[in-house]
Amino acid sequence: MHAVIMAGGRGTRFWPRSREKKPKHLLDITSDRTIIQETVDRIKPIIDPKNILVVTGKKQARELKKQLPHVPSGNIIIEPYGKNTAACIGLAALHIQKKSGDDIMAVLPADHAIGNSDEYRKVLSAAIQAAAQPDTLVTVGIKPHSPHTGFGYIERGESCGRISGREVFRVRSIREKPDMIQAQSFVKSGNFYWNSGMFIWKTSAILDRIERFLPELHKGLVKIKKALGTAHEARTLADVYKKLPSISIDYGVMEKANNAFVFPADFGWSDVGSWDTVYELAVKNPQGNAAACSSEAIFENTQNCYVYSPKKLVAIVGAEDLIVVDTKDALLICKKGFSQNVKKVVEKLEKEKKKKYL
Amino acid sequence: MHAVIMAGGRGTRFWPRSREKKPKHLLDITSDRTIIQETVDRIKPIIDPKNILVVTGKKQARELKKQLPHVPSGNIIIEPYGKNTAACIGLAALHIQKKSGDDIMAVLPADHAIGNSDEYRKVLSAAIQAAAQPDTLVTVGIKPHSPHTGFGYIERGESCGRISGREVFRVRSIREKPDMIQAQSFVKSGNFYWNSGMFIWKTSAILDRIERFLPELHKGLVKIKKALGTAHEARTLADVYKKLPSISIDYGVMEKANNAFVFPADFGWSDVGSWDTVYELAVKNPQGNAAACSSEAIFENTQNCYVYSPKKLVAIVGAEDLIVVDTKDALLICKKGFSQNVKKVVEKLEKEKKKKYL
Repeated sequence: MHAVIMAGGRGTRFWPRSREKKPKHLLDITSDRTIIQETVDRIKPIIDPKNILVVTGKKQARELKKQLPHVPSGNIIIEPYGKNTAACIGLAALHIQKKSGDDIMAVLPADHAIGNSDEYRKVLSAAIQAAAQPDTLVTVGIKPHSPHTGFGYIERGESCGRISGREVFRVRSIREKPDMIQAQSFVKSGNFYWNSGMFIWKTSAILDRIERFLPELHKGLVKIKKALGTAHEARTLADVYKKLPSISIDYGVMEKANNAFVFPADFGWSDVGSWDTVYELAVKNPQGNAAACSSEAIFENTQNCYVYSPKKLVAIVGAEDLIVVDTKDALLICKKGFSQNVKKVVEKLEKEKKKKYL
Repeated sequence: MHAVIMAGGRGTRFWPRSREKKPKHLLDITSDRTIIQETVDRIKPIIDPKNILVVTGKKQARELKKQLPHVPSGNIIIEPYGKNTAACIGLAALHIQKKSGDDIMAVLPADHAIGNSDEYRKVLSAAIQAAAQPDTLVTVGIKPHSPHTGFGYIERGESCGRISGREVFRVRSIREKPDMIQAQSFVKSGNFYWNSGMFIWKTSAILDRIERFLPELHKGLVKIKKALGTAHEARTLADVYKKLPSISIDYGVMEKANNAFVFPADFGWSDVGSWDTVYELAVKNPQGNAAACSSEAIFENTQNCYVYSPKKLVAIVGAEDLIVVDTKDALLICKKGFSQNVKKVVEKLEKEKKKKYL
C-alpha cells in the first residue's frame, strides 16, 4: 500500500515565512517539526516510508528531500507545472503502478494539521479497507464545527454500514465553498462534511474514472506512462503537462462518480489556512498572547497577539489582535481577521519584481 | 557669548532606537541629522562652535564627540551623575567663568525640534540682548497651540516693552504639568506659555541666584570650582555630585526669582516627547502612513501608521494607528496614544537584567 503526499502549494498566505522555495508545508508552523514532517510521522506507523511518494515542484524538491531523509529520493516526484490535484494524482498513480502494479494509494495533503493522530490513523485504516474493494473511491469528511465558508463540503447519501466500527456513506455531492447562509444550512442538516482533500483508492479505480471523466488528462497520462523510466521522461512530462487541463480531483472525478464513499471523521483537523488559524492553534497566555517557537516577546497592555520572531526581541505596547511575523529580511504585521490579505502583499511584491522577498 | 547644550536625557521613550549609549538627542529621528546635530547647526550662525559647551553623561560622551566634530572635545563636560538641570547649569557656568570670566550663556535642551530656525535665532538674539543687563534671567515661552498636559507652563506678568521688536514680559509663575482643566484655562487666558527649557543669562546672574535659593548646590559648586583644572577634579566632581540635590532650574530658581523675564515665541517648537510626536512630525502619504528614513514598507489596507525600518521590508496589513520601529536586535510595535508606555518596556528589561537591550 502507498501514500501520496501532495506537496505543491505556493503558500503565499504565510509570507514572509513562506517563500517560493519554502511554502507552508515546509515550515515548522504548528510545532517544532514542519507540517510535511508531521504528515509523514503521522502515517509512518501504518505506511512504510519506502512506500510514501511526495509530489512537488522543482523549486521545493531540495528542501523537501532534506526534511524527509527517510523517504527514498526516488519517491519525490517533480511536476514541471502545477496543474491542480487531478493531474498530480494521475501522475502518482502511474508511478505506483509501474513500481507495484495495481495497489491502494492514500492521497494526503501535505499541509494540514491533525490534533489526534491515533484517531486519524484509525479512520485512514478503515478507509484503506474500504478501498480494497474493486472500483471504489473513498474520501474522508471532517465533521464541521462551524459554518466555515472557506472550505468545500461533501454531502453524504445513504449509509453503507460500518467498517472497523466506522460508518461509511455514499457521496451524494461535492460542494464548492458556500456562502454563509448555505454553510449554516449544511451544518444544520447534519449531512455535510468539510472536504479534507484526503482520498483512498486503488490506482486502477482512479485511473479508470479519470479515463471516463477526464479523457484529455487520461490521454496525457498514457503518453507519460510510456515515457516513464526512459531517457525522454522529463521532456515528455514537460510537453504533456504544459497542455494538461488544470482541474481538481473533486470536481473532475468525485462529483461525477457514482462509486464514491465518505468516512465521517473528527480528529482535530485544521487546514492551517492562514495566520489567523495559526493563532487559533497556538498556545496562549492568559491575555491571549502567543510567542511561537521560543520567540522573545514583551506584551505591555496587549491582548490576543501572536508573535513569531526567533531572532529578535519583540515588544508590543497597547495593541490587540495583531499577528507579527519577523524573518531575516521581511517583517509582517497583520491585524487578525485580515490574514487572507497577506497574499496581496505577495502579489504586490511580484508586480514590483522584488524577487528576493518571494 | 556661550551656548550650553544640556544633553543628559536617557530617552527610554524612544526605545528600541534609544539606548543607554544613544539617547534621543543622538538619533536621526526627525531628519537625516541627529537632534543634537540639528541643535548645533541651528545656533552656529550666531554662536561659534568653540563657545558651545555640551553637558552630558559618561556613556554618551564618545558618540557625542563623534557627532559634533566641530565642538572642541574639551567643551564636552561630563557629569558623573544626572542631577537635573540646576546642577548641570551651575557646573556649566563654572566652566564658562573659568574660561572667559563673566559671560552670557544660552542654556538649550539638546533634544527639541524647531521648525523655523530663522525665527528661533531671532528670538534667541533678542533674549541674549536682554540677558546682557546685569542680574537678569531670561527664558523663552512657546505660544501654546493646544492645552497640552505634558508640558510645564510659564505665566507672564506685566509687559516690559520690546527688544529688537519682540515684546518681553516678567515671569509671574512657573507651573508644573497641569491637568486638562487647568491647561484649558491657561491657554484660554492668553497669559501662559509652554516652558521651552531655554534660559539665557550671565554666569554671574545665575550663580548668584543659585547661591540665594539653592545654597547646598552652591556650596558644592564652590568646591568643584576650586578643583577645576587640578589633578583631583574628577574625584571632587564625583564626591560632590553624589550628594547634590536633584532639582530643576525651573523650580529651584526661576519660580523664586523676581528678575525673570520671558520672550513669547512661535517657531515650530516640539519637545519630540514620544513616538506619537515623531509620527506627527513625519511626512505622511494620503493614507496617513509614514515610512521614515527611506524604510521599505508596504501598507495594505492600512492607515495612519509609522514605520522605521532601515534594514528590513515591513508589510502592514489591515491595521491602523501603529508605530513600528525595527532595530538590529529589537522590534517595537506600539499603538498610537500608548507611546508613553514604551518606557515600561525598558523598565521591564531593566528588572529582568536584559542589559543588551538597554
